[in-house]
Amino acid sequence: MIDKLVEKIKKTNAPIVVGLDPMLSYIPEHIQKKAFQEKGETLEGAAEAIWQFNKGIVDAVYDLIPAVKPQIAMYEQFGIPGLMAFKKTIDYCHEKDLVVIGDVKRGDIGSTSAAYASGHIGTVAVGSRTFHPFGEDFITVNPYLGTDGIKPFTDVCKEEKKGLFILVKTSNPSSGEFQDRLIDGRPLYEHVGEMVAQWGADCMGESYSYVGAVAGATYPEMGRILRKIMPKSYILVPGYGAQGGRGADLVHFFNEDGLGAIVNSSRGIIAAYKQEAYAKFGPEHFGEASRAAVEDMKKDINEALH
Amino acid sequence: MIDKLVEKIKKTNAPIVVGLDPMLSYIPEHIQKKAFQEKGETLEGAAEAIWQFNKGIVDAVYDLIPAVKPQIAMYEQFGIPGLMAFKKTIDYCHEKDLVVIGDVKRGDIGSTSAAYASGHIGTVAVGSRTFHPFGEDFITVNPYLGTDGIKPFTDVCKEEKKGLFILVKTSNPSSGEFQDRLIDGRPLYEHVGEMVAQWGADCMGESYSYVGAVAGATYPEMGRILRKIMPKSYILVPGYGAQGGRGADLVHFFNEDGLGAIVNSSRGIIAAYKQEAYAKFGPEHFGEASRAAVEDMKKDINEALH
Repeated sequence: MIDKLVEKIKKTNAPIVVGLDPMLSYIPEHIQKKAFQEKGETLEGAAEAIWQFNKGIVDAVYDLIPAVKPQIAMYEQFGIPGLMAFKKTIDYCHEKDLVVIGDVKRGDIGSTSAAYASGHIGTVAVGSRTFHPFGEDFITVNPYLGTDGIKPFTDVCKEEKKGLFILVKTSNPSSGEFQDRLIDGRPLYEHVGEMVAQWGADCMGESYSYVGAVAGATYPEMGRILRKIMPKSYILVPGYGAQGGRGADLVHFFNEDGLGAIVNSSRGIIAAYKQEAYAKFGPEHFGEASRAAVEDMKKDINEALH
Repeated sequence: MIDKLVEKIKKTNAPIVVGLDPMLSYIPEHIQKKAFQEKGETLEGAAEAIWQFNKGIVDAVYDLIPAVKPQIAMYEQFGIPGLMAFKKTIDYCHEKDLVVIGDVKRGDIGSTSAAYASGHIGTVAVGSRTFHPFGEDFITVNPYLGTDGIKPFTDVCKEEKKGLFILVKTSNPSSGEFQDRLIDGRPLYEHVGEMVAQWGADCMGESYSYVGAVAGATYPEMGRILRKIMPKSYILVPGYGAQGGRGADLVHFFNEDGLGAIVNSSRGIIAAYKQEAYAKFGPEHFGEASRAAVEDMKKDINEALH
């Protein structure tokens, strides 16, 4: 799947992933109203609004981008109906031939990580049959529990040709509280980065590993160091746009081949119609606003890279 | 909710939580067969088997214990039907007046943690209405992202009188890879433990904080240190039984008031009928085997404590 991701990035010339993180407040009123008329002001109604919103965005941008990243929390908060919209979104994005990165940040002791891996990127057996319950192509994983919490995920990646992005240096303001603390003179995130490189070494695709990392655009200098520590790991870079990261900050996350990183924007794309720059589209044309925002992001990043 | 948990622990004289982590391989064949006859060898069939198994165990042990801890991964691996069994299990345990600890190990940047908090221990608004989507009483949380990833959870705890157990020192063999690394001369888990004490300081119930910690029975000496660092935090102790922890190892996790810790056993209780000690019950009477295992665990812990 890393090979497909790289190929699609080259083809679209867009190292961009659109974060499908639909807060109800991002969803235009006409969509919410219609969904609530059909399904009531219920969890099902919220899920329907989310699904219609996602569909509108995916239909508007799918040919410009290689991948989407639905953040499962935004669906899980609406319980079972929300998770049904998560699954429906994954399936629809696959129909559009998009690579789907499930931003699930799971991670636990071995047997439990194995269950998460089965559910999200692998298969589960029931009697004589097997199923792909959620069916993402990549998922994000938390490294706090160490190797035996990660191995069940890499095992499934090898079998299924799926991939991971492991949290190394997150984009949020307090990420440094633990991640930046010095161990033997170097911050924890560097040690985690080294382990990511190790975990990924025997999970190689053509030029990059199935095992990637997450490092926030909000910390570009740290990205530069991590790029060297994990030369074969793709870096998923959140924090661009709404969280403060800019195109020029992103250069360090890429390798000299112009590859090696994929930059996420969520709010900046999916709620573009709410920004002054794209207000002219209006809520009725939120998809077109998202498309314009993707094109601007692509330009911003490509200008910084070249 | 911490007050209810403490009260129920005193009343049952059992600082025990039963981990409802149903692997299909633990579920007696007659239950699987019936479920597959009704719903097919499908995710729905697996979910039905899990639910019937859980119900059998809860019915057999609910009067002996204060709390249960369903591990969401074991449900999530069966997709949407699995998660419906998770929710059904939570609701049934509430009917039996059990405290429900959702072992979800979520944790993300602020806005995302807020969504997880809403979905699991809080409420979510849809139009003019609000819902409690999953409705656990406590959840487990991963601290890797620092304070702004934790605060949305503690905010919801204050509003809803719910609680957290934050991962500090996990029970798995490789937990030390990052958690034991020395920072300013002390292991990372001690620093995390100090933050747990801080986060919990303004979330106090009568005698303990809503904000607890996870520390594995497999590392009793570390439990002793953590007990002192976080005197007001309840410690959820996994790793007893099948993972190797024994009653005598648990003493350090408790305070002098005999409180302050709650010990989880999953496989050791729910798959008791598969162990030699309880084989006499047979798969048909798996619930009675679990009841006997709870009684033995209670005896083992209380002998160690007194």
